[in-house]
Amino acid sequence: MSPIAERQLYIYNSLSGLKEIFNPINNNKVGMYVCGPTVYNNVHLGNCRTFISFDIIFRYLKHLGYKVRYVRNITDAGHLENDADEGEDRIAKKARIEEIEPMEVVQKYTVDFHKTLAKFNTLPPSIEPTATGHIVEQIELVKQILDAGFAYEVEGSVYFDVLKFNESSTYGKLSGRKLEDMIHNTRETSGQSEKRNPQDFALWKKAQPEHIMRWPSPWGNGFPGWHLECTAMSTKYLGKQFDIHGGGMDLKFPHHECEIAQGEAVSNCSPANYWVHANMLTLNGKKMAKSTGNNILPDEIFSGENEIMERPFSPTVTRFFMLQAHYRSVLDFSNDAMLASEKGFSKLMQGLSLLDTLDTAKETTGFDLAEWRKKCYNAMNDDFNTPILIANLFDAVKFAQYVNDGRKSITKEDLNALQTTLHNFVYDVLGLTKEEQEGDHYLEDALQLLIELRNDARKRKDFATSDKIRDELSKAGIVLQDGPQETTFTLK
Amino acid sequence: MSPIAERQLYIYNSLSGLKEIFNPINNNKVGMYVCGPTVYNNVHLGNCRTFISFDIIFRYLKHLGYKVRYVRNITDAGHLENDADEGEDRIAKKARIEEIEPMEVVQKYTVDFHKTLAKFNTLPPSIEPTATGHIVEQIELVKQILDAGFAYEVEGSVYFDVLKFNESSTYGKLSGRKLEDMIHNTRETSGQSEKRNPQDFALWKKAQPEHIMRWPSPWGNGFPGWHLECTAMSTKYLGKQFDIHGGGMDLKFPHHECEIAQGEAVSNCSPANYWVHANMLTLNGKKMAKSTGNNILPDEIFSGENEIMERPFSPTVTRFFMLQAHYRSVLDFSNDAMLASEKGFSKLMQGLSLLDTLDTAKETTGFDLAEWRKKCYNAMNDDFNTPILIANLFDAVKFAQYVNDGRKSITKEDLNALQTTLHNFVYDVLGLTKEEQEGDHYLEDALQLLIELRNDARKRKDFATSDKIRDELSKAGIVLQDGPQETTFTLK
Repeated sequence: MSPIAERQLYIYNSLSGLKEIFNPINNNKVGMYVCGPTVYNNVHLGNCRTFISFDIIFRYLKHLGYKVRYVRNITDAGHLENDADEGEDRIAKKARIEEIEPMEVVQKYTVDFHKTLAKFNTLPPSIEPTATGHIVEQIELVKQILDAGFAYEVEGSVYFDVLKFNESSTYGKLSGRKLEDMIHNTRETSGQSEKRNPQDFALWKKAQPEHIMRWPSPWGNGFPGWHLECTAMSTKYLGKQFDIHGGGMDLKFPHHECEIAQGEAVSNCSPANYWVHANMLTLNGKKMAKSTGNNILPDEIFSGENEIMERPFSPTVTRFFMLQAHYRSVLDFSNDAMLASEKGFSKLMQGLSLLDTLDTAKETTGFDLAEWRKKCYNAMNDDFNTPILIANLFDAVKFAQYVNDGRKSITKEDLNALQTTLHNFVYDVLGLTKEEQEGDHYLEDALQLLIELRNDARKRKDFATSDKIRDELSKAGIVLQDGPQETTFTLK
Repeated sequence: MSPIAERQLYIYNSLSGLKEIFNPINNNKVGMYVCGPTVYNNVHLGNCRTFISFDIIFRYLKHLGYKVRYVRNITDAGHLENDADEGEDRIAKKARIEEIEPMEVVQKYTVDFHKTLAKFNTLPPSIEPTATGHIVEQIELVKQILDAGFAYEVEGSVYFDVLKFNESSTYGKLSGRKLEDMIHNTRETSGQSEKRNPQDFALWKKAQPEHIMRWPSPWGNGFPGWHLECTAMSTKYLGKQFDIHGGGMDLKFPHHECEIAQGEAVSNCSPANYWVHANMLTLNGKKMAKSTGNNILPDEIFSGENEIMERPFSPTVTRFFMLQAHYRSVLDFSNDAMLASEKGFSKLMQGLSLLDTLDTAKETTGFDLAEWRKKCYNAMNDDFNTPILIANLFDAVKFAQYVNDGRKSITKEDLNALQTTLHNFVYDVLGLTKEEQEGDHYLEDALQLLIELRNDARKRKDFATSDKIRDELSKAGIVLQDGPQETTFTLK
């Protein structure tokens, strides 16, 4: 069955608040833009969840046979503190604190970002443009917005005129905010700001003398506003109107609202057809925050060097944990949830291994492969519902166990099809990876033999030998545990 | 002993043809710029050698206590075929062939480049700027060179006036070429080119309609000349005059010659004080070239999937192989040379492990630790002579074996100092890594225990048990070999 035949994909569009049939602009090609990180600190786990969510969307679209151009940017300039139009650049501030050049900050945290996402097995995007890499394009865009009459210059800065824009369009349509309410709720009195209206936002800011990151422009030395880069880069690589625009839920307002305004101002069309937002991750029921200590970095999970988790968890288990929730749901990260995910992941992978060992029969009983396969696709086609998909994958694992126990049977053909579909979903679509390292089976086999020799020694009452085995292994950090059925081992 | 005390570093300066004492401009801080890759194909082994050579320089300078700002660029635009001023952009050409957008080519091969260099354990540079990320700076630089009278505009392109430059400076001083000879040897007749003189080079090129990568400029839509980016980026991040400029030997002319001309044209000083060039890598005595098949990619070495090498070699062994030659020597890559390096590397690492097990004595005999340490530093201070350093490290390994055999002795204090120095050089300076994977010691320990139990069983004539151990291990792919002294194992 060709993957293309599985297409009837629905995507929840934040713009309409509805799940809509996905119809790309150019038949078989999909353009997707996702707002990437501002590289001024180590990537946090919530960001990772967002990028893993879009990695799933990227992988599934490719699995369906689309040629996807996935653009995810790196914000390396222009993002000021508190997402505001005044204050210090986040990267420049970090550079000042660390006493290095801003681009050294950018490099340090870009390297960290790439390393961490690679551990989570996310695919690199097709293009990864940077804000500082598109200053020319941003200046050109400001010129166009000025020419179109939607911006004004004040003292070397250029601001977007939100009221003017709202005359012909609706500012706030993505986030569901009304401009009148925003104006009503604003306490800022005119005169304190260069802006005509507090809702206006900066397209280009004049650089104060202490501002290190600056470029020449028709309005003097300055730097681009934070919202501008995404419009400049998305339209450069995907055209003025493209298919999917994604990002974290927190970017809906003002960032994406401003992108829509900028895009519409110069092209009279909404920049993206489907706006997709990934939800947040909490930790033990509370918002993650460095200030309260309710915070954990990915590497702290993998190393176990943290006070929140009982022990380390691997990147692929962490990824699996995230995929067990739908990307639009809030997800809570906790030790118990991770323990459960680890168990589930292990069960799934054992099920996959079990398939390699099954005997086949003349008929398949108790499992409708075509129906099951359809359910898997239905789950993903329903706005990328990975938890439902995973539940279906577990149904297949359960069936495999029944076949193994001799309670059900499967034909060779069905077994092949089942394996192919499971591999596609587990490895290609969900991007999970086998955990065992090269060489691990040697250790497993050697330890099984030692456990056997210990049992032999006990039987012949040779306790010197059985104790020696236990004690020597313990010295090496390998702890044997005698259960009612069998002896297992743990590595310290 | 403070590392700073070891300083009396000499660096071979291509500009003078002499080894010169290294005196950085700003005391304890070093600025180093190295020409990075043009990202239009998988990084080849020769490039890796260059970047490993500069990684050693970066690491050693840091080891000496310098604060190093190491800038290595990514060329993602402007590098035309045959390093010329006419023809297709290398990246755009690849994009045309692969039917993707040029920046997708850039992303694909940047990711490959980073992955490969990470396998070789090279440290990321402090800043990794891109040519497209510095269009504004390049345009500003062209303006400055025009203002200084060293360039001229023709039909939307701007060229550097080499004859004019040669009136006040010497074009060719780095590569030892004379401008008169170049002019004499040029067959190009005037009239076929926009250039006043065939030696002139492009600072900015007008974009032909088919040229995809283009930016607006005061001279119309176009793109920067290849040599321009390095001047723009090195001076932006390191100042108009900095300490070290490096690159592959093949970049000496015209690339670095042109950089010197551009730099001197706007600042009246030579851009870099020390010009450092890494030599090339040959394969089986011949130049590597895709066209002849005399070519091997790093991943083909690591996987063993190639027709040149007998079997796979690890990245760290490949790195060690490269460090066994001086960076300014031509190095030939071959199966035999790699086998020898693998053996040497293994001997070095075994020596390091041996140190952990040595008994100490009241005096050290047959080894002058201070003298040996000085020799190690002398080697590195003599233009980063890694092969001499490695020879010295082997002297220490040999001494450790003598101590182990009881032929020599060492005090506890000396042993600690020896270990520290060796670790510094092996791990920090040479950037070598232990090959054993996480968990390997478990296997080692479990197998040692099995070998012991087998010996116990033999002693008590329990051949059923001793055979069982050998046979079960053999089934698991672990082969025991009984030697005269001890039993060893091999993994199949």
